[in-house]
Formats: sequence, structure tokens, C-alpha cells
Amino acid sequence: MSITSYRPADGTVAGSVPDTTPAEVDAVVAAASAAAPLLAAASPTTRAGWLLAVATALEAHADELAALADTETALGLPRLTGEVGRTAAQLRFYAGVAVEGSWLGVSVDSATPTSPELVRLNRSLGPVAVFGASNFPFAFGVLGNDTASALAVGCPVVAKAHPAHALTCERLAEIATAALTEAGAPAGAFGMVAGMDAGVGLVRADGITAVGFTGSQAGGLALWRLANERAVVIPVFAEMGTVNPAVLTPRALEHPDRLEQVARGFVGSFTLGSGQFCTKPGMLLAPAGEGVAEAVGAALTEAAPSATMLTERIASAAIDGVERLLAAGATEVARAKGPGAGWSADAVVLRAAAGALRDGSPLLEECFGPVAIVVEYADDAELATALDALQGSLAGTVVTDGSGTDPGAADLVDRLAGKVGRVTVDDWPTGVAWTWAQQHGGPWPSTSAPAATSVGAAALGRWVRPVTYQSVPDAALPEAARAANPWQLPRRVDGVLALP
Amino acid sequence: MSITSYRPADGTVAGSVPDTTPAEVDAVVAAASAAAPLLAAASPTTRAGWLLAVATALEAHADELAALADTETALGLPRLTGEVGRTAAQLRFYAGVAVEGSWLGVSVDSATPTSPELVRLNRSLGPVAVFGASNFPFAFGVLGNDTASALAVGCPVVAKAHPAHALTCERLAEIATAALTEAGAPAGAFGMVAGMDAGVGLVRADGITAVGFTGSQAGGLALWRLANERAVVIPVFAEMGTVNPAVLTPRALEHPDRLEQVARGFVGSFTLGSGQFCTKPGMLLAPAGEGVAEAVGAALTEAAPSATMLTERIASAAIDGVERLLAAGATEVARAKGPGAGWSADAVVLRAAAGALRDGSPLLEECFGPVAIVVEYADDAELATALDALQGSLAGTVVTDGSGTDPGAADLVDRLAGKVGRVTVDDWPTGVAWTWAQQHGGPWPSTSAPAATSVGAAALGRWVRPVTYQSVPDAALPEAARAANPWQLPRRVDGVLALP
Repeated sequence: MSITSYRPADGTVAGSVPDTTPAEVDAVVAAASAAAPLLAAASPTTRAGWLLAVATALEAHADELAALADTETALGLPRLTGEVGRTAAQLRFYAGVAVEGSWLGVSVDSATPTSPELVRLNRSLGPVAVFGASNFPFAFGVLGNDTASALAVGCPVVAKAHPAHALTCERLAEIATAALTEAGAPAGAFGMVAGMDAGVGLVRADGITAVGFTGSQAGGLALWRLANERAVVIPVFAEMGTVNPAVLTPRALEHPDRLEQVARGFVGSFTLGSGQFCTKPGMLLAPAGEGVAEAVGAALTEAAPSATMLTERIASAAIDGVERLLAAGATEVARAKGPGAGWSADAVVLRAAAGALRDGSPLLEECFGPVAIVVEYADDAELATALDALQGSLAGTVVTDGSGTDPGAADLVDRLAGKVGRVTVDDWPTGVAWTWAQQHGGPWPSTSAPAATSVGAAALGRWVRPVTYQSVPDAALPEAARAANPWQLPRRVDGVLALP
Repeated sequence: MSITSYRPADGTVAGSVPDTTPAEVDAVVAAASAAAPLLAAASPTTRAGWLLAVATALEAHADELAALADTETALGLPRLTGEVGRTAAQLRFYAGVAVEGSWLGVSVDSATPTSPELVRLNRSLGPVAVFGASNFPFAFGVLGNDTASALAVGCPVVAKAHPAHALTCERLAEIATAALTEAGAPAGAFGMVAGMDAGVGLVRADGITAVGFTGSQAGGLALWRLANERAVVIPVFAEMGTVNPAVLTPRALEHPDRLEQVARGFVGSFTLGSGQFCTKPGMLLAPAGEGVAEAVGAALTEAAPSATMLTERIASAAIDGVERLLAAGATEVARAKGPGAGWSADAVVLRAAAGALRDGSPLLEECFGPVAIVVEYADDAELATALDALQGSLAGTVVTDGSGTDPGAADLVDRLAGKVGRVTVDDWPTGVAWTWAQQHGGPWPSTSAPAATSVGAAALGRWVRPVTYQSVPDAALPEAARAANPWQLPRRVDGVLALP
């Protein structure tokens, strides 16, 4: 058996990658398990050297990788070349976060007459299974945020190749393996498997200690259930994406040019990458009777995006999704035809009344692709009810009057903060910066672990657990926690933060 | 329907507490939900005032509470009076941790030409359901670590009364409610329900956002499964306890007096509170042929503990547990008879060969009560295999030669750290200090969330999730995250930790 790779632009076959056999999965996991203590024992500085080597190798192969990925995804060379650069930058960022060392959480309580000495710090979990996304073959792929953050804390990674770009995954694995070997990382630090059965086998494998996933709710929840059925249950950090609502404040449209500006911005955001973003704003909550739906429809017609989708299944799901929304009470406002050839979908703007947002309605669910609904509310009470009805999302957006002092912003920001992991103001949510303060993860069902993030410095925290050492002689402590603080880490000593 | 409270000393009825009806559960959860935004909006200093008021009220009622709890638990007045004091101290500790504010995790990334301003901080989840333990009616009870840490971060608590000491729970709830009201906390900040069905209803209630549990694996995993079946899955932090292995280093017995000292210490630890500690060391891994099992047996006979158990069910489970261990290949070394009257169990020392520790063996499972096994290994290889076979535990202990420089300590500390949440050296694990560096939680199945702790400063982190605010005007940010830093919090600014 093998995975067939297709060209979305015309639906022809681009190549194939063999499925990994169960015995091969076992061997890859065994290699990762053997590498685990070596990676965990390496200092963050040593591991940073490995990550930097992978980053440099990616950049050296940027053109080749972008061309290969464009064949398999049709996302375009400029976007894909940029994404290779972003992925290299992410690897460097996580390396730096690892060296800074706050993620180790070193905390020391001196002994007192009634309490023993306690030293607490985080410990790497062990081999991590990474299921990358269809829509970001590099930044959220086999060498993306999950892999980079896991390697940074000393967890070996076994990635699963994504069927939407299996050839690209295979090439990425070759490049990473060569770079890691060259940089002196232990064999088994990174491995890859391919095929649905191999993915299931990976989650079930005794040696795997945690799972990172980016993709659909169906896929993420299936892995989460599998992991919960293990004898030793392991955490699944599934980032699944949802509707990502945007809401207009009462004053947002007071200025005459604001409506057209908002409509264009919204269309630009929800059709970016053919709407294949987990942070796509899929819903715009707007006052009825202000012409918002019409303006968004006009902006779509003007922009006239031509959406080629990543896979045949994603294309048909987008088409079916529009039908499902129409059947649930939405009506069509405007449509931009897809290219027709290959994996084609239309970009569509729909409208619905806020009253239709009831528990169980398809209007509350993500339609992955270049599709968005303008939801019209009659008054504040109807808006409040609609906001309560929303599922948890990764991101939510407040659109204000643009002045920076809109008095309606604070209330909507707070309400959305109860529903999402990231709130933006006058800033469409489709960009996800990989920085210290990022949170990419929201309430269930947008992620399976709402307290975790898959992007940003805190992403490292997913792959560790704390251990406290009680009355343990200094020489028997992990190096990071010894009294001399050899790694120059920020520490908490008797409850007080101390910088190195 | 009602819960009958018994006197373990003689098995007579002490009283009863009515079961909470489904309508009453709904009302308690609704009150908690209504209180949630008020608690979340209060500053940590304000909330600390509420916790301190509860602490003071507990101390004022210490004698009354200890006497009532002794009737229901037979744990003895000295222990119970001390535990009330400890519970008050815990409340004050968590109040201080809340005010220090690191748990809010404020992180600010300034805008750059390619990246927007991001401000990340933790947000209270909302109403938390707390299922306290049978064995610590105060410190891990309805006003214990879970409740104190949840209130500290602004989450209302709905506790479930424990059937082993329902009258004590009822009285604690009265005292806490009066103290909170007096201190100005919103109505609904704390509530209680009683009865098995009410507990199930609580975990299923839409308004509940997280669950804290301390108790048996059967109980904890049942709640975890219930929570995983919700439409909106919520986290369950179940601290369930397991075997808590202790291991002798090769040199541990070189000194002539060491064996007797270790045997006495081990017996003291595993029979403390009739062995009803989740951190009870249930297994001592020792070299064969050194007389360790005999010495432990002799120490038990000498100590002659007389174990009254918390409930009839716990007593019979301890008795059945010994039979199960014997059937699995253990042999009896010594036995101290229980008092016979009431909920009585014998204290028992067993021995088994390390080779009997195979997957699925009852020898690898907790026997809650005054029961321990000396597991004898022939050589290092057999010890290594035995350690690998162990389930995850809350704590593990290394017994060295006592010199502080035992060269065998570091390796065993590291191996146990892979299996437990807390490693102690020459220090029995039954005490759990409530300090900054504590970790009370270990790998599955000792806890359902191995990265979390139910004791210590990090316990607050269970009841929050991060939200990032992107391009949000200062006035629309939560107060904790505003540029002027009005709460004087430690913050990370552009990746650099800054103390207030």
C-alpha cells in the first residue's frame, strides 16, 4: 500500500510514498525511545545547535521545497517560499526559548524545621508523535511548531507524513535527518511514518508519550479517543480550528468609509490561502439593516478569488459545507467561481439571522474553505445570545470604529475572551506570530487541551511534566536544578523569582 | 435519600446528610455561574482576603471540627486538630501565591514591523467541582488544596460532600459560607452538594468548567470518563495514588544499624493513618538475602499498630487486597491484628520476588491500607526490570547509606523520576508540604493529568487557561495586563522576565 500524491491544480498524480509497515513503525518508535534519554540529557544549548542546523538546511533547500510543495498543494510559490523561511525562523525561536530556560520551571524551597528541601523542575516526557496540518506543509508540518518545540525540550519526534503533501514530507524528513546527523544529534531524534494505519499504530505505541496534531475536528478527536483508550493514557494536543467569530461594535460603522474597509478586510482574511486557515474568520456578527452582508458580497465579487483546494476531499467538503449551511437557514449573498479544473471550490458569502444560531445548528460549525457567513442581529440582546451560542474557537475579532478609543471594545473583548484563545482588535486573525506571548489554542472543541498552545514560547510546556526532588543531595539532582545553577536559568528560590 | 454517617470505631450511625436533588444541583451550579465573573474580576488581593477569612474561621472552630471528624473518621484528635491548622495554613499560602501573581503568566510582545502587539495572560475557567478525599477530611477535603487554589484564582467552587465524613463536610460548608459572606465574597463563591447522583450531575452540568478529585482510581477514572463524554469536554484533575515504590541503593545496608532503622521508618510510613495515604510507600525493593523482609516484619510486630479504617468498604478492600496479593504470589511475613470492633483491618507485611512484578499483576497495584510488600531482587538487572514494570506513582523513595554521598543515589533518583511526580531520598514520602516547589501528581494512572499538581503553588495553574490579546487597546485589556502594571505583577516583556 502507498499514499498517492496529487496535483490539486489539475487532479493528476504527482507521485507516491509507501505506507510504513507495523514492523517499521515499531522500529521507528524504538529508535526514538533509545534516543530519548540522550536528548533529555543534552543541554538546551546543545539541542539549540541541532535546531539551528535544521533551520539552515531548510533555507538552503527553500526553492526546491517550495516548488515541490506547490506541486502538491497549489498554495503558490511566494507563499510557500515565505513559509519555508518562517519555519526556519520558528526553529531558531524555539531553540532560543529552550536556552532561556524558563520552561524548566526550576523552583527551590529550602528546608525549614517543618518542611524538607524541595526542588521542582520540568522533565522531558519522551518520544512525541506529530501529526502535521494539510494547510501549512512547512510551518505546521513535519518540521513545524510541534516538532521544533518538542526537540527543543529534548523529546524525540516521530512525525506522520500528511497525505496532502507526502512527497514534501518525505523530502523534509530527509533534509532534517541529514542536518541532525551532521550536527551530532543522536540517531532516532527524528523519524517519520506514512499511512493511516501507521498513524494509528503510532498513537497506540507504548513508547509514544504525547501527541501533537493540527487539523480537522474529526481527525483530532479520533486521535484523542485512541489515546484515551491506551493502558497508559497520554496527552493529545490537538489544534482543530473552528468558526473564529468577528464582531462589530455598535459604533464600528459610524465613519462613512468603514463599511467598505471592513468588508474588504474580512474577504481578504477569509479567502486567504483559499480559506484553508484554522484561524479563518468564518463568521461576521453585524447589526441587521446596515448593509454589511451586501458590502461583504460586493467585496468578494470585486476580489474574485479563484480557490484551488488542497485535496479532492477538502474541495468536496467545502462545497458540501455550503449546501449544509444553506439547508440550515443561511442564504447566499455572493459567490466567486472556482477555477473548475482540479480540486476547485467556489468562494461564498452567506447571510443568516442571529436567531438561527441554535445549539446543534451547522451554522455554529467550521466550513473549511473560502466560505463565511454574515450573521445579522437585531439588538444587543440578540448579539449576546448569539455570542453565548458560539462554540470555543482559536481566535475572535472585534471590529471597532478604528479610533482606538471605541467605548464598545472592552465589553466585546472580554466576552470573546471567554470563547476563544486569542482576541484581536481591528486586526484579522489569520496571521499567527511565533513569539513569546502567543496563544494558539482555544476552548473545547477548538483544541483538546485549551490550556496549551501550539505556537509561541509556551508550546514547549506541552512536552514536559514536573518532578519534585525532596531531600535529594545536590549531586543526585538533574544538572539544571543544581545549586550552582550551571545553565544560568531563571529560578524561584523560596518563592521569590530570581533572574540569572 | 440521604447519606448515613458512621462511627468507624464501632460501626454505629453518627447521623445523616440529605442527598442533594437534581434541581438543587442546578441551583448551586447556577449560583456559582452567576458568581464567576464577579470572582474573576476581583483582584487577587481581594480574593486573598476571602481566603484568610475562611482560614481564621477554621481555626476558631478547630476543636469542634476535629471532634466531629474524629467521630466520623477515627483518625484521632491530635492528627485532626493539626490537620485543621494545616488547612488554614494552606488557605493562607494559596492566597499569597495568588497575590504574587506569577500564575497569571503576563507576557507582552511589543509590535514590530512584521508582528502585532500580543499580550498573553491566564484567565479563570469558571465554576470548579471539587471531590475531596476520604482520608484527609480537612487538608484534601471540601476546603482543601483544590478549593483554596480555585478560589485563589477566582473560580467559584462547588464541592461534593464525602460520604466518609458527610457531617464534617456539612459543618465545613456552613463555616466557609458564613466566613465568605462576612468577608464580602459574592454569593455562590462556594457551594456544596451531597450524594452520588449529585456528584454525577455536577460533572455533567454545563456550568462546571473543571473538576478536582482526590481518591481511588475507580472513582477518579469514572469522573474522567464522564467529563470526556460531555458535549464540551472539561479537564479532570484526579489525584489517585498508587504504589509509591521505595528502593534501596546497593550500599544502603552497609552500615550495621541501617537495616533496623530503615525497617522502622518504612513501617512508620506505611502504617501512618492506618496506611490511608495516597503517598503511602506500598513497596520496598530490596536485595534478596539481606533479611530486609524479616526486619520489616519485626518492626511491624514491634510497632503493633491497630488499624481502624475510614469506612467499612475501605476496611474490606484492605482485607481483600491482602488476599489478592497473596493469590498473586506474595507471602505473608508479619501481621498486626486490627482492633476487631468497627471498621477494622490488620496491618500486614508481605514479600514477593521481583520476578513476580509482571504486567497485569495485582502486585503492581495499590492496596489502600496498612499493607506493604518487600520485593526482593537478585541483581541489578532484576531491579531494572522491576522498576520498568512499575506503574506511574505520586512519589518514589531512594534509601541510601545515609551518608549523603551514596554513589548509587543519582541513578535511582533519575530512574524513579521517570515513574513518579516526587522523588525523595532518605525521607519517607507520606508528608506533602504545601510550598512553592511541591509536585503532588505523577504519571498515569497516579493522576489523570500528570503535568498538574494538586498541592503547591502550581496548583493554581489547573483552573486557568491563557488568552492572547492582539492589537487590543490598553483600556480594553484585563486590568492585570495593562501597561501600567497596576497589580505589580512579574511579567515577561519582549521575552525578558521583569520583576515588579
